[in-house]
Amino acid sequence: MKKFLNHVDHMLTESLSGFAAAHHDLVELQLEPTFIARKHKAQNKVALISGGGSGHEPLHAGYVGKGMLDAACPGQVFTSPTPDQMLAAAEAVHAGQGVLFIVKNYAGDVMNFEMAAEMLPFAHATVLTADDCAVVNSTYTTGRRGVAGTVIVEKCVGSLAESGADLASCKALGDKINQRTSSIGVALTSCTVPAAGRPTFDISDSEIEMGVGIHGEPGRRREPIRDADAIIADMVAAIVHDFAAKQLPTQGNILLLVNGLGATPLMELYLIYNTAAKLLTAQGFQITRSLVGNYTTAIDMAGASLTVCLLDDEIQQHWDSPVHTVGLRWGC
Amino acid sequence: MKKFLNHVDHMLTESLSGFAAAHHDLVELQLEPTFIARKHKAQNKVALISGGGSGHEPLHAGYVGKGMLDAACPGQVFTSPTPDQMLAAAEAVHAGQGVLFIVKNYAGDVMNFEMAAEMLPFAHATVLTADDCAVVNSTYTTGRRGVAGTVIVEKCVGSLAESGADLASCKALGDKINQRTSSIGVALTSCTVPAAGRPTFDISDSEIEMGVGIHGEPGRRREPIRDADAIIADMVAAIVHDFAAKQLPTQGNILLLVNGLGATPLMELYLIYNTAAKLLTAQGFQITRSLVGNYTTAIDMAGASLTVCLLDDEIQQHWDSPVHTVGLRWGC
Repeated sequence: MKKFLNHVDHMLTESLSGFAAAHHDLVELQLEPTFIARKHKAQNKVALISGGGSGHEPLHAGYVGKGMLDAACPGQVFTSPTPDQMLAAAEAVHAGQGVLFIVKNYAGDVMNFEMAAEMLPFAHATVLTADDCAVVNSTYTTGRRGVAGTVIVEKCVGSLAESGADLASCKALGDKINQRTSSIGVALTSCTVPAAGRPTFDISDSEIEMGVGIHGEPGRRREPIRDADAIIADMVAAIVHDFAAKQLPTQGNILLLVNGLGATPLMELYLIYNTAAKLLTAQGFQITRSLVGNYTTAIDMAGASLTVCLLDDEIQQHWDSPVHTVGLRWGC
Repeated sequence: MKKFLNHVDHMLTESLSGFAAAHHDLVELQLEPTFIARKHKAQNKVALISGGGSGHEPLHAGYVGKGMLDAACPGQVFTSPTPDQMLAAAEAVHAGQGVLFIVKNYAGDVMNFEMAAEMLPFAHATVLTADDCAVVNSTYTTGRRGVAGTVIVEKCVGSLAESGADLASCKALGDKINQRTSSIGVALTSCTVPAAGRPTFDISDSEIEMGVGIHGEPGRRREPIRDADAIIADMVAAIVHDFAAKQLPTQGNILLLVNGLGATPLMELYLIYNTAAKLLTAQGFQITRSLVGNYTTAIDMAGASLTVCLLDDEIQQHWDSPVHTVGLRWGC
């Protein structure tokens, strides 16, 4: 394992300290229990809190800021944060209108956010994201995994919360976006968890993992590497199939997110975008919003995911609204 | 070699087409000769044009837009663009106030931009960036290499040009920033040029290349991997030494850029930031501006570079001014 690292036990704290120092105008770090919150606490709005295992940066701490999250609770790498982190974050950022947890569907995260929710002295609700259409159940998951579609939920619900909407409306928008969003990923290489010190899975130089999870969980199949166009065609077909299965129209305005899993050059992500956009357009979709880059990573995995969100006027309006975070910034 | 790729010969065009499609509100792609220009041509200002071999994305096409470049000319991977690209770009974006080329100091780029300049029917000047303090001469370079400090030159000169300043003032600011900026990189792994199909250099699992170039050029030395803090201390010391050699003060306000070379997780970049910031502060610098992420990459290299720019009021003002590009965006 080759990483910029002092000691595995200190890596998360050192990294979060660097994050908070580099962006001290935007965020604050609290330790023990650990969370990242906005530097300037919001007033009189639903407080949005997300979190999960680290290793997916910029998710979630990179999405704390005006127009998006109020706080993020990072666990150790690929390990759920604990309920005391969520409670401390909620106490710190609650602004009189209740707390909405945005949680990726993994057993540990779901359990710990549920425990925190039960102890919360505030009105609360939870949006569970489960956009990964690769597999039904998975290593750490009953039901579909939450992956890069979570970014779209956090952005749009963040916008709605900023407008003063109530808790039920924020939850409803999050649930709607999750229902209208499908993702699928593919790995060229494994990731390496620092504490493990070796790749999570073995894969040969001539194979890819189609449908991989963001922790290196198995996907649909191990297959020989092919031309990018052939790989992307299968990914687009999986998403279109999932839309049909969810009884969503397979045409209309969409947001297309091409997400790098950590070690994939931008040049390849744009090549993927080029092919995916053509295939989705031929399918009948109109790509009216796009995002290309590393938004939900799997540490140092070479690979990429596609996320398609079926827009409507409400979702598009909240996607376009101003946001000022480390990971997404426009209009501010 | 595992990459998202159809055919090596088409990779650049497919990737640029995806880039232009994803960001069609901001940029336009021209092919044969190839360049990326702003969607909305600027009026009555110095036209800023940069370019170089591909593989360093988001440099340079990702910095085309309001407040930064007018056009970028991408060559094949790690290969200089040709003079006809620069001439065509200049013809397209010239806005009556002359053309400023911003060129990283590599022999091929310098020669081709010089040839284009000689043929230009407009007033013109060139800023040569040479911020890499690792080595004096290098594989493709007489004199120091231009690396991530180029981003700071493009951002600040872009701001000055947008304000209506003349060609000589734009060149003077670019030269000043280059003189006040030092960088050094370190590689944990090689990069792989798609057309070569194999890593550019061999490096063992227990070694790093201190002072690596953004094409995988040799640095100062091959050495055993150590704790991140020890590696970063050497990088900071190299920059401080270079400041002293350039007779720059080794205190004062700085911009600190921690740049990922392509395959390094954000978590590690922030760990690097944390240590570098402490060391630079202890040295007497005050870090008043920061940037952390993949801004000047070496395809899929695992590694990172540090860039320190000694600010003054003029540079800081132009760094802070609004910019709307794919790679940098604020205030818009």
